[in-house]
Amino acid sequence: MAKLEAASTAYLAQTMRVLSNWGCLLVSGDLGKANVMTIGWGLAGPLWGRTFFIVAVRPSRYTYMFIEKNGDFTVNVPSRDMEKIVDYCGSVSGRDHDKFKESGLTIVSSKKVTSPIIYECVVHFECKVEYATDVEPRGLPTDVITECYPHGDYHRLYFGEVLATYADEDAAEHLPT
Amino acid sequence: MAKLEAASTAYLAQTMRVLSNWGCLLVSGDLGKANVMTIGWGLAGPLWGRTFFIVAVRPSRYTYMFIEKNGDFTVNVPSRDMEKIVDYCGSVSGRDHDKFKESGLTIVSSKKVTSPIIYECVVHFECKVEYATDVEPRGLPTDVITECYPHGDYHRLYFGEVLATYADEDAAEHLPT
Repeated sequence: MAKLEAASTAYLAQTMRVLSNWGCLLVSGDLGKANVMTIGWGLAGPLWGRTFFIVAVRPSRYTYMFIEKNGDFTVNVPSRDMEKIVDYCGSVSGRDHDKFKESGLTIVSSKKVTSPIIYECVVHFECKVEYATDVEPRGLPTDVITECYPHGDYHRLYFGEVLATYADEDAAEHLPT
Repeated sequence: MAKLEAASTAYLAQTMRVLSNWGCLLVSGDLGKANVMTIGWGLAGPLWGRTFFIVAVRPSRYTYMFIEKNGDFTVNVPSRDMEKIVDYCGSVSGRDHDKFKESGLTIVSSKKVTSPIIYECVVHFECKVEYATDVEPRGLPTDVITECYPHGDYHRLYFGEVLATYADEDAAEHLPT
């Protein structure tokens, strides 16, 4: 299936909907060694005259060290037949599992960043980290701390400039509904 | 024109497109005293199990003290006949001008926050600030500092939880193309 280049803001609505309802696949690393994790949170839009995709990663996550080392990541929007894979990639750590192999996911080279994309996904954002900030407990609402940070491990928010966006020709037919 | 409630993630794609191409109108204050400014940057999506709209406001802006005081804001997406108004609201300060009056904009009560909405706009997001972080020069790329912060005045990023989203029934027909 041909993957066609798209504007950096194209597919943001569908991506936000899939993020909220299913999750998307965040990949960082390189073709030799990478990790994939499922994310349910993320924000996107224009900033500093560019388009950014912000992802939130806890320091305890295996992905954290990949992003810290490589300084880039890809966000991959699954097709509607990948629900179990998305669940699985959010339930085990890449420290103990080769999630790509176990899930039958193929990583292929990105166009602009080191981190690969997942070929089976239907929409892809290649992002270069241009800024990061750690979530600080002071200033956070108490219920967010209770619900999301009972053990600390506050997220680092990575501001990834979207350097390339592309999608399967027939992405609209295969995105989760 | 009836304004219909919508899911918090509805209209994000159109809003991001209008933000990038034209700008949207950010309002903070109350019905007695408020300010409007044009924003061209903003990010939205799910975080902490809610939907957030992040806006960036410089400490020097008149809007800054309104958000600091009220802790909420609205993002209003203009109709396609409001291009000059959007430009004007981004070119003068509310310290010296009553931009609502000069632009013929009507502020009306929001449903969930203190800051009003602009009736003439076609899509509205009511947002309560749940977190904020100041952009720190260290870690920012040099070209971003040069282009966006030649005089410092680094933005505060306000993370506004989207408490209500609604739009004119015929918003699709009136949004900027």
